Amino acid sequence: FKWLNLYRSLQTYVILTAVGITIGFVAASLNIVTEYLSNIRTGYCSSHFYLNKSFCCWGELEESKCSNWVEYSQFAPLNYTMFILISLVLSFTASSLVLNYAPFAAGSGISEIKCIVSGFTLSGFLSTWTFLMKSIGLPLAIASGLSVGKEGPSVHYAVCVGSIISKLFLQGFPNKQKDNTTGKSRTSSSLTFKNILVASSAAGVAVAFGSPMGGVLFSIEEISNMFKLSTMWESYYCSLVAVFVLKLMNPFRTGQVVMFEVTYDRDWHFFEIPFFIILGVFGGIYGIIISKYNIKMVSFRKKFLGEHALKEVLILAGITSIISYFNDFLKMDMTEGMQILYEECSDIFENHKICHLANNYQIFNTLLTLALATLIRMILIVFTYGCKVPAGIFVPSMACGATFGRALGILVQLWHKHNSSSKLFTTGCLADDTKCITPGTYAFLGAASALSGITHLTVTVVVIMFELTGALKYIIPTMITVAVTKIINDNYGKGGIADQMIEFNGLPFIDPHEDHDFFDHVVDDAMTLKTVSLLEKGLTYKQISVFIADTNFQTLPIIESLQKPIIKGIIGRDELITVIQKNQLLKNIELDTPCHFSSTDSDSMDVINFTNYINPAPITVKLGTPLETVLDLFHKLGPKCILIEQDGLLKGVITRKDILRYEYYLHNVVSGHNEDSEVL
Amino acid sequence: FKWLNLYRSLQTYVILTAVGITIGFVAASLNIVTEYLSNIRTGYCSSHFYLNKSFCCWGELEESKCSNWVEYSQFAPLNYTMFILISLVLSFTASSLVLNYAPFAAGSGISEIKCIVSGFTLSGFLSTWTFLMKSIGLPLAIASGLSVGKEGPSVHYAVCVGSIISKLFLQGFPNKQKDNTTGKSRTSSSLTFKNILVASSAAGVAVAFGSPMGGVLFSIEEISNMFKLSTMWESYYCSLVAVFVLKLMNPFRTGQVVMFEVTYDRDWHFFEIPFFIILGVFGGIYGIIISKYNIKMVSFRKKFLGEHALKEVLILAGITSIISYFNDFLKMDMTEGMQILYEECSDIFENHKICHLANNYQIFNTLLTLALATLIRMILIVFTYGCKVPAGIFVPSMACGATFGRALGILVQLWHKHNSSSKLFTTGCLADDTKCITPGTYAFLGAASALSGITHLTVTVVVIMFELTGALKYIIPTMITVAVTKIINDNYGKGGIADQMIEFNGLPFIDPHEDHDFFDHVVDDAMTLKTVSLLEKGLTYKQISVFIADTNFQTLPIIESLQKPIIKGIIGRDELITVIQKNQLLKNIELDTPCHFSSTDSDSMDVINFTNYINPAPITVKLGTPLETVLDLFHKLGPKCILIEQDGLLKGVITRKDILRYEYYLHNVVSGHNEDSEVL
Repeated sequence: FKWLNLYRSLQTYVILTAVGITIGFVAASLNIVTEYLSNIRTGYCSSHFYLNKSFCCWGELEESKCSNWVEYSQFAPLNYTMFILISLVLSFTASSLVLNYAPFAAGSGISEIKCIVSGFTLSGFLSTWTFLMKSIGLPLAIASGLSVGKEGPSVHYAVCVGSIISKLFLQGFPNKQKDNTTGKSRTSSSLTFKNILVASSAAGVAVAFGSPMGGVLFSIEEISNMFKLSTMWESYYCSLVAVFVLKLMNPFRTGQVVMFEVTYDRDWHFFEIPFFIILGVFGGIYGIIISKYNIKMVSFRKKFLGEHALKEVLILAGITSIISYFNDFLKMDMTEGMQILYEECSDIFENHKICHLANNYQIFNTLLTLALATLIRMILIVFTYGCKVPAGIFVPSMACGATFGRALGILVQLWHKHNSSSKLFTTGCLADDTKCITPGTYAFLGAASALSGITHLTVTVVVIMFELTGALKYIIPTMITVAVTKIINDNYGKGGIADQMIEFNGLPFIDPHEDHDFFDHVVDDAMTLKTVSLLEKGLTYKQISVFIADTNFQTLPIIESLQKPIIKGIIGRDELITVIQKNQLLKNIELDTPCHFSSTDSDSMDVINFTNYINPAPITVKLGTPLETVLDLFHKLGPKCILIEQDGLLKGVITRKDILRYEYYLHNVVSGHNEDSEVL
Repeated sequence: FKWLNLYRSLQTYVILTAVGITIGFVAASLNIVTEYLSNIRTGYCSSHFYLNKSFCCWGELEESKCSNWVEYSQFAPLNYTMFILISLVLSFTASSLVLNYAPFAAGSGISEIKCIVSGFTLSGFLSTWTFLMKSIGLPLAIASGLSVGKEGPSVHYAVCVGSIISKLFLQGFPNKQKDNTTGKSRTSSSLTFKNILVASSAAGVAVAFGSPMGGVLFSIEEISNMFKLSTMWESYYCSLVAVFVLKLMNPFRTGQVVMFEVTYDRDWHFFEIPFFIILGVFGGIYGIIISKYNIKMVSFRKKFLGEHALKEVLILAGITSIISYFNDFLKMDMTEGMQILYEECSDIFENHKICHLANNYQIFNTLLTLALATLIRMILIVFTYGCKVPAGIFVPSMACGATFGRALGILVQLWHKHNSSSKLFTTGCLADDTKCITPGTYAFLGAASALSGITHLTVTVVVIMFELTGALKYIIPTMITVAVTKIINDNYGKGGIADQMIEFNGLPFIDPHEDHDFFDHVVDDAMTLKTVSLLEKGLTYKQISVFIADTNFQTLPIIESLQKPIIKGIIGRDELITVIQKNQLLKNIELDTPCHFSSTDSDSMDVINFTNYINPAPITVKLGTPLETVLDLFHKLGPKCILIEQDGLLKGVITRKDILRYEYYLHNVVSGHNEDSEVL
């Protein structure tokens, strides 16, 4: 027994290590490819065409004066054309790969993964083809300049890796045992499998952001449907391995696992809190607006653009590149842009022109660039998220928040400059301190706020932002901003974008974190009355085989008699088939061979005995049990169906889908709160 | 309905804000008092006796040459005597306050809080007196130099604050309703109450470490028995408010909420990983040894020192101060010591003598000091943790880990110095780089490892260490070290010290995070057969009142008849009494008035009708249900008891205590694995 446990835990470690290493390796490769492809839109390396910009210019004192990296032509319009053309080629490749080989690889994937982890199957979603197309399509889509991020897709390909590798391992060793005798409704291997998916999702976020702890928290706050310390540890371990491999491969050659690192030397001041709150409000509004219009766009796409997916992607990529070329922060890679936005302006190094605010013209120009970048990016996100390329929404949201935050920061800095003798400031920072306000921190907080606004995550966002920058001094401001966003979302929002997509697409998902409101309805209302049950005695082989052939019920109750349906147990469809196959090998089965489901004489030759395969103590509830309790039972104990009885007699059966159907009926039909129905 | 929800959520926010503010205020005050009391053991401020050392020396260029802070005498032995005497006075005061006014204020309190949050009551443990004595006793105990930390006690007083304040609010507005009709087993107000306790515990850790996110994770990983997103958000909010108040009050006058801040400029190298693993192993072994011997000490104390608690504390304080005076790292405040241990040695500032490693004598001296500090501190912790003063084990453990880690770091540095041309190093850092190894980071990792070893927490420890120092570059080493500690603990340890104390003290706690092993036992074995049931009809008022007077069953099943015990529902003792009292007001009740539990004619004058107060659909399981499933039902759905039936007939009743009793029986009586029984 002890050895079996040891073997199982070792097996888990081996799988997690393999999964972590693979994810880290894939992430590092994708990082390198993405950077190269992003760069070739604006130019190429004249000495070695296969180098990206930073390697091409390696060793040069100032990147802006790098001699090896050249633009395509001296003639500006030609460069512009190249920029657009390459964007089109990249997005075309990404989209056609996805559409032809793995349609599941489009979009983010987080919604579907939440459903899979909560116990539903979505075949093909975690297949090898999906993994390949998602990994190949992702760098192409990002490099094409579309407003897409890599985080959602990273989670998806990571979970694919987890699924593929753990299936390889678990197939060889089916430790599916003692399930029926003890009446356990989940097998240990399927539990392990789910845990590995959760751990992989953690590793996916970890490598995407270079934030191992953020990954762990993401898996707790967003993916995992049941919090267990062992799952948390598995996520921790898998993230650590993945990030460690990423660090070893060192894709950015900076020794860092994140693309940028910012440190703030200056502290914040209490008088800045109102501005932090404004940033939080922005994030909340951002989340609500983007998800509302994006859902409308997705519904429009479903209705009218079904056949034109590739064209749509091309048009989006075209428009994006045509517009972006003229705005610095839209043109450059989003991560690169955020690095510039987060940074403190310093006197020593030469800064981006965002720091040049000497005269009114420069100020106006900078503010306009930032405002336009925020607004255009928001519009692009609404149209792009959900189109048929691998696409995440985290990083584009952060980019929006960062441009908005930086603009606000610059305004606050100007206000301070013109009122620096005010008593308000002198208590906070010295009157002559020109460095009192750091606009970079506003960009940082804006990014946190927008990320929280779109995902409705709190703890995860704070930890990710913290790991991205190590801004220890800014943990309280970050928490304040995210808290404001959360409060706005709770009161005016409809849930994170992943949950809204689940609802919109009608995916079978019961959110275990939320309280469901069934208005005191009881199980009687939602259950299926006409249940198909097996009789304890008296059925023949013929009846059972007809039954298997004609129906597709997965779990069946066994009752004493039709007149007196006392519950004797349940049996799964798979078990029925297994027993019949076993018996066929051993004895001669005829059509009228009787089938027994509850019998003590086990090996009678002229009977098919299912007794050892039934679960004699299934989960049952009484008539009148509140639906909330039944729902609790479903996602906490994980049965496939629950029997309803009264005085020991079977009255009905209920499944998760029955509950979802009933909840839908309650909310959309009865209460009439179907605001989206006009759009659909 | 909407207004009620709004009102409730507002109420929660008001309570959480009040709780957070109070906790932040108390924490700031305690910090100030602790620092003052710690300092007066070695001297006093000659200009203003009420100032602590750092304020007394405020503005002086170098603290070591502060002129206002003077020792008690020029004569060294007199200073030594004063040091011991003040320690004795402080510990005497702490202990006698606790013993006389609030015995529950002794020790850490985390174990008991885990039990309370999981649903058991421990009256007086969260009372105002306990709160007062814990808050007053804590600075005294820490300042007396005993090897105690403030984290456990901080959690305890924070939860007291949460309990006291929420009771004030919730008393006024009892929203205990619709419980019986819907059959819900928990009331919304008791749920809110528990959530507030969890949120308070988060705030307690947040203010103790100055680590708001660490607090949130602590409440998830250690305290909360059911993870819900709403609880996490409440913890987040409460921690934020508490830390914000702490920051406003600025007790250290450094603008920081932590006592120290360390930043590492240098990165780590791959060849250091074996040493990180050694640190992890140290933490694992540390945790196992300390908890094993501490449990033995606690059992010894229980048996032989029951009457001599005060004397014991005095002897401990005496011995501690006599020994500590001669070891730099034992003598100074633990937090202060850790700050020195974590720091990089720099050429610019004058460093502590720990950085002076010019000759062999200095090296030997430093290493000996560190080794002795580690060893003596470990012995002191074993004897001190559990004595009758408010006492946490987190910080002392971190201090042990830090001294050990620093010693290891110095050894590695020396090894590198003598082999700096080795190929191993040249790949990592430049051959002539004397700053290749940073012993401070080893101290930091050692502290993380020891903290994880004693608490068995992983994610929380990583986040706390991260928030303490902002050592962004060291997140992977921290994770590696903590992972090694975790693996050792899982394989050789017996659980975190809080869980071991729960088991040792026989507190009623079912750990929801763990898989319990019942070796396939079913509910039949553990249930109570002789159940007391109420008959649906036929009982008289006399029988009911005798029943109430003579028994103390909290929940009672209602059956159809003794011959045919079909389950009709359950009723709580409180409901029985309520209905009787209501009826007594309305009508004339005689001893032979019949009592009906399931009747449709509701208001007959000559009957006491309990029908509206019963729960007609209690949670039931069948005979043969695995105990693991029953346990799942208990901590996931939270009923007080579960009925066991077969064919609709009542067969027995089971409560949490029955399960715990049976688990104890299985593990200690049947399997004979009772290693501690010799000690007890």
